[in-house]
Amino acid sequence: MSEQIIQPRTLRGFTDILPAAGQHRRRMIMAIEDVFTSFGFDPIQTPAVEYAEILKGKGGAESDKQMFEFEDQGGRAVALRFDLTVPLARFVAQHHARLTLPLRAFNIGYVWRGERPQRGRYREFLQCDADIIGDTGVTADAEILSIIQTALLRMEIGPLVLRLNNRRILNGLLENLRLGDRIVAVLRALDKIDKIGPGGVVAELGGVGVSSAAVDRILAVVGCRQQTNEQTLARMAELVGASAEGEAGLAEVRQVLDLVAAATGRSDLVRFDPSIVRGLDYYTGVVFEVMHEWAPEVGSIGGGGRYDNLSGLYTARKLPGVGGTIGVSRILSALEGLDRLPKSGRQRTLVVVTRGPECDSVALAGIAAAVRATGTFDVDLFPARDAKHGAQMKYADSRGARYVLTLDPEGTVSVKDLVSGMRTASSVTGAADLLAKWEAER
Amino acid sequence: MSEQIIQPRTLRGFTDILPAAGQHRRRMIMAIEDVFTSFGFDPIQTPAVEYAEILKGKGGAESDKQMFEFEDQGGRAVALRFDLTVPLARFVAQHHARLTLPLRAFNIGYVWRGERPQRGRYREFLQCDADIIGDTGVTADAEILSIIQTALLRMEIGPLVLRLNNRRILNGLLENLRLGDRIVAVLRALDKIDKIGPGGVVAELGGVGVSSAAVDRILAVVGCRQQTNEQTLARMAELVGASAEGEAGLAEVRQVLDLVAAATGRSDLVRFDPSIVRGLDYYTGVVFEVMHEWAPEVGSIGGGGRYDNLSGLYTARKLPGVGGTIGVSRILSALEGLDRLPKSGRQRTLVVVTRGPECDSVALAGIAAAVRATGTFDVDLFPARDAKHGAQMKYADSRGARYVLTLDPEGTVSVKDLVSGMRTASSVTGAADLLAKWEAER
Repeated sequence: MSEQIIQPRTLRGFTDILPAAGQHRRRMIMAIEDVFTSFGFDPIQTPAVEYAEILKGKGGAESDKQMFEFEDQGGRAVALRFDLTVPLARFVAQHHARLTLPLRAFNIGYVWRGERPQRGRYREFLQCDADIIGDTGVTADAEILSIIQTALLRMEIGPLVLRLNNRRILNGLLENLRLGDRIVAVLRALDKIDKIGPGGVVAELGGVGVSSAAVDRILAVVGCRQQTNEQTLARMAELVGASAEGEAGLAEVRQVLDLVAAATGRSDLVRFDPSIVRGLDYYTGVVFEVMHEWAPEVGSIGGGGRYDNLSGLYTARKLPGVGGTIGVSRILSALEGLDRLPKSGRQRTLVVVTRGPECDSVALAGIAAAVRATGTFDVDLFPARDAKHGAQMKYADSRGARYVLTLDPEGTVSVKDLVSGMRTASSVTGAADLLAKWEAER
Repeated sequence: MSEQIIQPRTLRGFTDILPAAGQHRRRMIMAIEDVFTSFGFDPIQTPAVEYAEILKGKGGAESDKQMFEFEDQGGRAVALRFDLTVPLARFVAQHHARLTLPLRAFNIGYVWRGERPQRGRYREFLQCDADIIGDTGVTADAEILSIIQTALLRMEIGPLVLRLNNRRILNGLLENLRLGDRIVAVLRALDKIDKIGPGGVVAELGGVGVSSAAVDRILAVVGCRQQTNEQTLARMAELVGASAEGEAGLAEVRQVLDLVAAATGRSDLVRFDPSIVRGLDYYTGVVFEVMHEWAPEVGSIGGGGRYDNLSGLYTARKLPGVGGTIGVSRILSALEGLDRLPKSGRQRTLVVVTRGPECDSVALAGIAAAVRATGTFDVDLFPARDAKHGAQMKYADSRGARYVLTLDPEGTVSVKDLVSGMRTASSVTGAADLLAKWEAER
């Protein structure tokens, strides 16, 4: 078509997913969707592109800077979504009259952030969000933590920890310190503590006029994690001092821990960690992050929190929300990097039907269809008439096939198990039953 | 957070998917993925955003005009993909050394086209593509038609017809008429024949210097569909005249019809229709479109074809391809418009666990978990402590729940079947087994 070859390449921070990783991605999403629906959540979708005014100024200065913004053909200022939570807040404000509230919804889709690409951090990545809208209680908070924990366990991706906190605790402390108006600056600084260290936090907060005594109090609270949740709760009760907001936040943490343990049957995965603040401005209560113990350096592979005022940007109606997300792109990247992905993500056993130059193509298509109709196999009909048998066997092997069927010109089917080496001959009509029997017996 | 309320709205041509439609969308995608994998196809993904030079000039003037193009933060000229085929051609050119060829891959993702929105036509829509790369034979063509037909039947969306043609037939005719260099203009005009009529085609082709005798020959070929495929094949053999290319195209049509019938067990769904040309420039052989008999006015709900030269834009290596797509967004819109979607797209029976102000929240979370663990139910734990029982029953009804569980302050669970009206009392530990028994017996 063209004379000049265009270099085939993707943009930095954008990646292709090849077949093996694609199978794992699909297996993970199937596990997530199965768990999300089992909690009574319904799938919804919002567009990738929204009016810029809907998205901007909601996540904070950082996400505004990273936003992919442009003008569409009609000259409208639009942007690619940078998360799924802000569009959801717009969605419920727009459609609340048609929705059953409290809404239990999940949304699986890509989001875009123009951040500096590094391992596990992409400019395009898949998020799997579950949210409850229209309720302010801890039962909803606990449902979100439970659904995220259950989905992560179902994904079988290795050892995890969910770190839980509540913004009301920090709010209470800042009120006591008469720093309520500097909450955003404090959150920003604390969210970077892993990068800039406590010294960096001191410097940054000093810069906005927070006294060093106040910074010390804040750092003591943030750094107070003890051996057990009970110990951390006890120590925090002393540290936050008398503050209705702080006490309410601590009580919520306690209740959420109990409810998640009851809902998931496990109390060892959620850690109360007062250092968790989350980078986004819109959180108002519970916040949490999930870390993978094999790959802490990729950052959080999930997280979420309560955002009671976000929909208020779009409607006068009260639509408080709480939600969580699983970062499938980051999990895939982490496990690939660690070489910890299982060999195959395929659900069914693969059969390759090979072909000779003289075999009957129509008969072959019928054999493939019959084997597929058993429901037990994925069946791959090799397309090229003129490929050598050896090349086709090599193909079957590199595809991870377990069985190979070959039709000879006389109409006999040769059936081979590539693992056991077992081999036999069958009629055209008997091949599917024979394979199903082998598969059931192995 | 803000004083001024921002109007919650989506861009024209972009739509939200609400829970009921979302369930159907998910059910359709699950059916498609199950069929695609059963044919031995592996899931892959390419980015939504690509270098503009990768995407532009590949589909034709129309798709270039409709493309969402912009500059990213680094000043690079980028665009949103307008289909999944051009990115796939780039993908195989880039990764062929790491892929097992022939590649059998599927890709499910959104694409963006800034066309005039109308019923069933969106600016953002979901495509589900399956492709074979690295083979030129009719077996691969037939596999693609078979996989698309099988997936559409599995989706249970009502009566369909797949209309099949082959570009080589028209190419042969144009060669005979010494119009080979005007192929693109002829294809463009013919693709619009439903809109502009034969008169419009005559005018448009006259404008590029095609004689009226030649236009008559072309229109006779394009309009020659007969009662049966056999009759159309016979009539076309007369019309295309002596042309190696035209005869090869007809022979391919005949073989594909036979192979698809063998692979799917049905020969009534694929119609040889010489009027099908497809609007995109890159097709070189087989082309097909799927029409829904209930909603022909929404246009094709699927289609595809062979594109042997597309990867040649990105690599000197020969990577011929054939693929098909299913337009889930358009199918959903058509069935919604016709009120033909089944009432629920849910896979499992829904149970709502209600709550009173004095009931034990931890016990309630345990009951919900136990019912969920049966694997038979989706379980929705109503979050609000203070909601009245009547409001919770109304909620359960509007969610489409079959069963409701209520825990009284004494620790007894009341179990109710909303359809039969049956109701009984159970212990906390016995509720899950009881429900599973009811469900198995109904």
